[in-house]
Amino acid sequence: MDTPLSLVLFSGTDDKLQAAAVLTAGAAALGRPVRIFLQYWALDAFRADRIGRDHGLAPEAGAAGAAAIAAAAKAGQASWPETLRQAKELGDVEIRACSLSMDILRLTEQELDPLVDGAEGVTAFLLNAGDGQIVFI
Amino acid sequence: MDTPLSLVLFSGTDDKLQAAAVLTAGAAALGRPVRIFLQYWALDAFRADRIGRDHGLAPEAGAAGAAAIAAAAKAGQASWPETLRQAKELGDVEIRACSLSMDILRLTEQELDPLVDGAEGVTAFLLNAGDGQIVFI
Amino acid sequence: MDTPLSLVLFSGTDDKLQAAAVLTAGAAALGRPVRIFLQYWALDAFRADRIGRDHGLAPEAGAAGAAAIAAAAKAGQASWPETLRQAKELGDVEIRACSLSMDILRLTEQELDPLVDGAEGVTAFLLNAGDGQIVFI
Repeated sequence: MDTPLSLVLFSGTDDKLQAAAVLTAGAAALGRPVRIFLQYWALDAFRADRIGRDHGLAPEAGAAGAAAIAAAAKAGQASWPETLRQAKELGDVEIRACSLSMDILRLTEQELDPLVDGAEGVTAFLLNAGDGQIVFI
Repeated sequence: MDTPLSLVLFSGTDDKLQAAAVLTAGAAALGRPVRIFLQYWALDAFRADRIGRDHGLAPEAGAAGAAAIAAAAKAGQASWPETLRQAKELGDVEIRACSLSMDILRLTEQELDPLVDGAEGVTAFLLNAGDGQIVFI
Repeated sequence: MDTPLSLVLFSGTDDKLQAAAVLTAGAAALGRPVRIFLQYWALDAFRADRIGRDHGLAPEAGAAGAAAIAAAAKAGQASWPETLRQAKELGDVEIRACSLSMDILRLTEQELDPLVDGAEGVTAFLLNAGDGQIVFI
């Protein structure tokens, strides 16, 4: 399958970003191109000065969920930036910031982690997605 | 591409609804039909007496995120109802309420904003989506 | 349409799981295969000892939303496990746990409700999805 898997990342909590990274790594391992479009709080999580920090979890995680995530990290589970870095080395993965979200959050490309390949508008994202899957996370 | 882009809107916070409106406007600008299906809290946000109100943000937005959104609105960024209205004028955009969610929230079509073109069941929505993209927001 | 509708369930609140169950039932009624992949908090909600409990709602539901959902349940609206059970009887619906999420939450298949047909990795899920729709909830 040459059609890209296109992901719109909206949420900036570590659990959702990890779910997105796992889908990305799986698709890249299958040889599929992956196109990621960063909006709002997901974009904020890719700021160079914040990407390594704790970004919290979805409210429903609760204390037991948070403890399970922390234990998995301690046991060596790769973080989402690490998983994305490996997926980019392994396959055809592009990560773009939504230019409108850049404006709203008043960010410049220099402030983003090098994982991000640049910014683009929503029409460019949709054109690249073609008729392939679009997953909003 | 004549296949519609189908969006299921579930969340009713202003940030997610804005993300949905931007995808809608982008697809409409590209000449693609867009089919929107309103469930739960997104449907609630389309009530005629509430659509113009503040619907809050995802919990992860935090104080800094909320300030950035407020500043963008003040600087003239179109609200999501405004963006959807423009997309409907520009292109082939239909917005339908999920009839089951109408029942749960005890709403009648008269209580919804004129942006909403009527109600339909989930099978009608899926049939209209065909094999085109379905994005859950 | 023989292409499966593939759902990634991430959230474990009753409103999102109900929305997923309704999409599943609709697709099954149309004769479409449905493939469900359980991650994180959705997986946790399918634990045999918890599936029947109250799993809360998205934070945006608020008091009025919670009251509406409770009233609908009292008026006889099927719960999401019930809707999924019916969909599995009616059509070709498979529910799999994400093996990575199983590890993170330290769950064994024996601890999951019989609605779950087993565990699989993300690449198996993506291969089964083929070029069909993938919806993340």
